Amino acid sequence: MLGTSGNFSAVVQRTPLRLAITSSSLPKGTLKASDILQCDEHGRVVGRARGKPSAETLLHVEIARRRGAGAVLHTHSVWSTMLSDAWASGADKDVASVAIQGYEMLKGLAGVTSHEHRELVPIVDNDQDMSRLARRVGETLEHYPQAHAFLLRRHGLYTWGETLADAERHIEILEFLFETIGRTGRSPSWP
Amino acid sequence: MLGTSGNFSAVVQRTPLRLAITSSSLPKGTLKASDILQCDEHGRVVGRARGKPSAETLLHVEIARRRGAGAVLHTHSVWSTMLSDAWASGADKDVASVAIQGYEMLKGLAGVTSHEHRELVPIVDNDQDMSRLARRVGETLEHYPQAHAFLLRRHGLYTWGETLADAERHIEILEFLFETIGRTGRSPSWP
Amino acid sequence: MLGTSGNFSAVVQRTPLRLAITSSSLPKGTLKASDILQCDEHGRVVGRARGKPSAETLLHVEIARRRGAGAVLHTHSVWSTMLSDAWASGADKDVASVAIQGYEMLKGLAGVTSHEHRELVPIVDNDQDMSRLARRVGETLEHYPQAHAFLLRRHGLYTWGETLADAERHIEILEFLFETIGRTGRSPSWP
Amino acid sequence: MLGTSGNFSAVVQRTPLRLAITSSSLPKGTLKASDILQCDEHGRVVGRARGKPSAETLLHVEIARRRGAGAVLHTHSVWSTMLSDAWASGADKDVASVAIQGYEMLKGLAGVTSHEHRELVPIVDNDQDMSRLARRVGETLEHYPQAHAFLLRRHGLYTWGETLADAERHIEILEFLFETIGRTGRSPSWP
Repeated sequence: MLGTSGNFSAVVQRTPLRLAITSSSLPKGTLKASDILQCDEHGRVVGRARGKPSAETLLHVEIARRRGAGAVLHTHSVWSTMLSDAWASGADKDVASVAIQGYEMLKGLAGVTSHEHRELVPIVDNDQDMSRLARRVGETLEHYPQAHAFLLRRHGLYTWGETLADAERHIEILEFLFETIGRTGRSPSWP
Repeated sequence: MLGTSGNFSAVVQRTPLRLAITSSSLPKGTLKASDILQCDEHGRVVGRARGKPSAETLLHVEIARRRGAGAVLHTHSVWSTMLSDAWASGADKDVASVAIQGYEMLKGLAGVTSHEHRELVPIVDNDQDMSRLARRVGETLEHYPQAHAFLLRRHGLYTWGETLADAERHIEILEFLFETIGRTGRSPSWP
Repeated sequence: MLGTSGNFSAVVQRTPLRLAITSSSLPKGTLKASDILQCDEHGRVVGRARGKPSAETLLHVEIARRRGAGAVLHTHSVWSTMLSDAWASGADKDVASVAIQGYEMLKGLAGVTSHEHRELVPIVDNDQDMSRLARRVGETLEHYPQAHAFLLRRHGLYTWGETLADAERHIEILEFLFETIGRTGRSPSWP
Repeated sequence: MLGTSGNFSAVVQRTPLRLAITSSSLPKGTLKASDILQCDEHGRVVGRARGKPSAETLLHVEIARRRGAGAVLHTHSVWSTMLSDAWASGADKDVASVAIQGYEMLKGLAGVTSHEHRELVPIVDNDQDMSRLARRVGETLEHYPQAHAFLLRRHGLYTWGETLADAERHIEILEFLFETIGRTGRSPSWP
């Protein structure tokens, strides 16, 4: 979460959807309670608090709705940035993904019971048009119904879980796997 | 110990064998005393506490019995995962091992008095069938009577010691050596 | 900031220019208030405090004047040192620069609103003659009016911001990008 | 200082030489005052405290006597271990050294005033015979009168300084340079 990167949300209410989400452009190491806003499914702030929710609120809404997630976490790490790039190049970008199989650590992902599981982490091209990007994220989530996460290309990781603890565990597991794969140099296009 | 990975045990009593061992599926950064269970040599919980011991309890039992270890530690690191894979590929997997020789740090392993010592860290194929895996671990321990540790392939490290402090020292020593060998790129099958 | 490397400054007054700057040759982990001196635009200490300001004070003055910066930070990291060298070699050294484009993290630099932004981080040859180096830094700042930072070759990073928090954010963003580019191996002359 | 590796000393008295030095085989993260012993120039414990001084005490004595050092620090890091090996191979081992030139960080070494300084860090073959190793270290110190440090091959770094703070600074500087050179892949025999 270097600079002001990354954002977090948790579902406060399902119907209608209410997300507690971090304000835009804050360093995450010094978050205060008042830096968390409540939004509706269109990304509009509701309630008494004023402020500007994360620019990527619509992506959180897509995930909360389509996956029934209770918490969504978005982080930027060196290894996830590198893999989102190396595995996207040279392939049909709309269906690019990082394939991870054979590692015991995969069992840390919800519902996975064997290292033989094959996890596909789809890669979505980055875009500053948030409505368009949210739409593409929605399509990707439909296209990869088993995925526990996706990568925005040269941008970062989105993962989620039933609870905030589950989403945190997913980050730790995926970052471990990204670093392992990255250091091993397994990639279709690694230089 | 990312996610809920890894598990720890210590021998409480030798005859009959009683192991204090971490419960299954817990994040290790927030362990409480009540997260440690007592098990017998069949991995069954004994005493008043209720809970599910680590899924890998039978491996701890094998090590405690065959090595007379007082403590057993199992961790998942990026470098041990990478080496367990790179040194296993292309070789007869049943006898695969990481060979480490010539490093002063080897003297941190119990009973080693010279950097010229050659440590063979056997690699055992990963398996979700714990009885079968425990049997194979038992055979490996017999086959490598001098080994201070073994690796489960693409899974992690098991090491042990007379005391918990000895086992901790072995982790530090082995992780240092794995990282050094891994960064140097010494491996029969490194990409 | 290993050893006694690096130095920090903040503008106390614009006209005439007054900089608060770290004393020369101090380990930065144990800075006390009395280790910060006040200097004028010629790098001379003003006010009651006595001491020797950072040897690189004139570089801070150049940046404060030409960029209107409120704070200037200079650090030495492994990745910035490596990139300052790898991207300088084999090119016309007077105009060498590290080119960074396509990363979401670029949006953490002041005024940047898209990952498509192309940031050129100029590389200035290192020099122990501080007047000459300050002059060359001044020319470089004029030549790259959009740059948020520059590198001294095999030496380190200079960046700045309207506030100290902005300059800190720039360090985090640039170090992330340097590490990502460095690990990916993108460089005109990487071995 | 992983495992029980490394050892520290400081000169308490010059004539006759008295060294305060860490006891043998202790984890350095939990040192107590009683873990520091006083030795004479033959490595024998003097004073009331009982215990076994570091096995490498004679190397500390050599450095204290030949360099007039006030403090001697010996550490084991991954990068120093790797460089001590990569730069030794393929060369005449008796005169092997790591050459470092052109980095601003070199100015953190005592008496160095320009990045153009060329530091030669000699590499001495490792040996469990401490009298023989001390003799070879003595010869190396004579042969490289300007050196601020030496490496034991596949073992670790020895550096020193007029004060403990100087020796600490030398460790930080040298580790930075070793990592930079190691990551850049500059070596006569890097794989």
